[in-house]
Amino acid sequence: MLNYRNGLELMPSYDGVERSYRIKVNANESTLNLPPTVEERVLNRLAMIAFNRYPGEEYRSLVEQIAKNFAVDASQILLGGGSSEIIEKVFHAFGGAGRKVVFPQPSFSMYKIYAKAAESDAVPFNLDAQFDLDVDAFIAKIREVGANLAVVCNPNNPTGNALTPAQVEKIAASIECAFLLDEAYVEFYGQSAVNLVAKYPNLLVARTFSKAYGLAGVRVGYMIAQAEVTRMIDKAFMPYHMNVLSLATADIVYQMREEFVPRLQMIIAERERLAQRLEKISGVKVFPSNTNFLLIRLARAEELKNYLESLNIGVRYFAPTAFGLKNCLRISIGTIPENDEVFAAIKHFLEAM
Amino acid sequence: MLNYRNGLELMPSYDGVERSYRIKVNANESTLNLPPTVEERVLNRLAMIAFNRYPGEEYRSLVEQIAKNFAVDASQILLGGGSSEIIEKVFHAFGGAGRKVVFPQPSFSMYKIYAKAAESDAVPFNLDAQFDLDVDAFIAKIREVGANLAVVCNPNNPTGNALTPAQVEKIAASIECAFLLDEAYVEFYGQSAVNLVAKYPNLLVARTFSKAYGLAGVRVGYMIAQAEVTRMIDKAFMPYHMNVLSLATADIVYQMREEFVPRLQMIIAERERLAQRLEKISGVKVFPSNTNFLLIRLARAEELKNYLESLNIGVRYFAPTAFGLKNCLRISIGTIPENDEVFAAIKHFLEAM
Repeated sequence: MLNYRNGLELMPSYDGVERSYRIKVNANESTLNLPPTVEERVLNRLAMIAFNRYPGEEYRSLVEQIAKNFAVDASQILLGGGSSEIIEKVFHAFGGAGRKVVFPQPSFSMYKIYAKAAESDAVPFNLDAQFDLDVDAFIAKIREVGANLAVVCNPNNPTGNALTPAQVEKIAASIECAFLLDEAYVEFYGQSAVNLVAKYPNLLVARTFSKAYGLAGVRVGYMIAQAEVTRMIDKAFMPYHMNVLSLATADIVYQMREEFVPRLQMIIAERERLAQRLEKISGVKVFPSNTNFLLIRLARAEELKNYLESLNIGVRYFAPTAFGLKNCLRISIGTIPENDEVFAAIKHFLEAM
Repeated sequence: MLNYRNGLELMPSYDGVERSYRIKVNANESTLNLPPTVEERVLNRLAMIAFNRYPGEEYRSLVEQIAKNFAVDASQILLGGGSSEIIEKVFHAFGGAGRKVVFPQPSFSMYKIYAKAAESDAVPFNLDAQFDLDVDAFIAKIREVGANLAVVCNPNNPTGNALTPAQVEKIAASIECAFLLDEAYVEFYGQSAVNLVAKYPNLLVARTFSKAYGLAGVRVGYMIAQAEVTRMIDKAFMPYHMNVLSLATADIVYQMREEFVPRLQMIIAERERLAQRLEKISGVKVFPSNTNFLLIRLARAEELKNYLESLNIGVRYFAPTAFGLKNCLRISIGTIPENDEVFAAIKHFLEAM
């Protein structure tokens, strides 16, 4: 009787409930809540919120801070509910029947879904066995299919590796269509392509507060592009899509972003330490990472995932059907004691069980 | 060079900045922030938030509370970023090229925009001179154009009047297509149609925390429909579209909703008191209201709006092109002193200027 939108029935549903674990390293979150000095200021700010008023200047205030940091104009910044909403709207804005979106695989699993939601055709491009992207072949593919949007997650989730700025620039310079660079993990890598936006009108960079700034629950991300591009993408957003609590929280966090530097350094150092220890275990392949997680491959990945769950440790396991990720586990970097415990559990499983 | 989605260029852009006023009665907000007892519990709850974790059980917790209150199953509830996002997604789910959405005019001005965003055709149906809806003619129109979605705001914004539950039921029973009832202001009216959901599989009811619960800045709304309908509409939402701060705030507010009853009673009493006083001013037509605002008509509406602005009082003025709203102002009900000051200013303007 009810006549739903074409294709809606085929969209997957989500229950939205994340399981909790004693050690939760399955979702590339920060395992630390806000630094105490930041938390105090955030809570003081939230206590001053006019809950009863529609969002007003809070959006603009955060935009101006971000613009100043990147030395771009405020008109070049858009905010979204996590980079998720940014990506969703960019896919929408460049999507439509028959339009093609090209992105590497394996990569962020939501790209397929966003393509479907935008009623576009997802065209995955395979990474090689080491998860490296053949940039020339990727460019050729984008041209060959007449893509309307190309998307690269850099550094890449869930593989952890990254394109160099020169490789990113080569893609931007070589394609005519829109190029969305998803820099969700870039703070753990250090080489953003935001500076290329001035030169390439087809480049859109998506960033998030969910990872390096530990605000996954707060849902704030942003996009940087040339002003004419943001003007158009903005049309895909509805008024009041951002709430004041999240905006005020991200505003304080961004003001105090220096407080997050020691954590970033700790996570990068811990990533290297954990990688080196895991590499020494026979049968474990550790992929190089520029992110806050490690991807490993081992023969008994599913069994290990189950064993870790029995210890109330959550890691990310990929379905055997996920392209290129057979027998892979993704482990987010936690605190030193968490990483030590995860390592000890993996070592025990592989050497004694 | 960049090839945007068909129709995107024609979508209006929003700057998202609300002007502030000393007395702000232009946006149908609550002019009171949270009751102190509620605010204290909200802030205590926010201090316990894991900002760093993706939203988990907070969504489910609020859904279960709402379901319990309405004696429906949790599967019948969806949450959104204000009823705005609910409405946007319902329009999307029943939209698409050539699909028609019928709604009365004047009504909530965003319906046209949501129809365009969903790539559907908006078919406005004119209210009469008293802003009453001819229900039989409305039903006939829905059938005649082969609408895929009918939308009614009840009570209606910006006219303030309401359909009776029997009228709502007649529409639900008489049309085959989806019927979205936007009950943003229903707490000021008292006659919700949620109880009709069990009987009519085409009925979707949207509600919000923005008005009666004073959470306009927090962006939480919900939808109640039969489970099969919510299952489908849910597909239009992306994962993690709700943030934990807003969910936790609405959860506490809903637990403490009895605290809002005195305010509702005050606003209803003040609405009647202000209406009676305004009616006594010669040349002012006051439309009956079942909401938290009054719509008035007077010859010098634009001039009055400017005068009130000069006193730092913000009211809603409608462009002369807005159907049926020529020379109308919409004034939200504030506190007793605010309403007294607004009244005195209007009276002074009309009798002495």
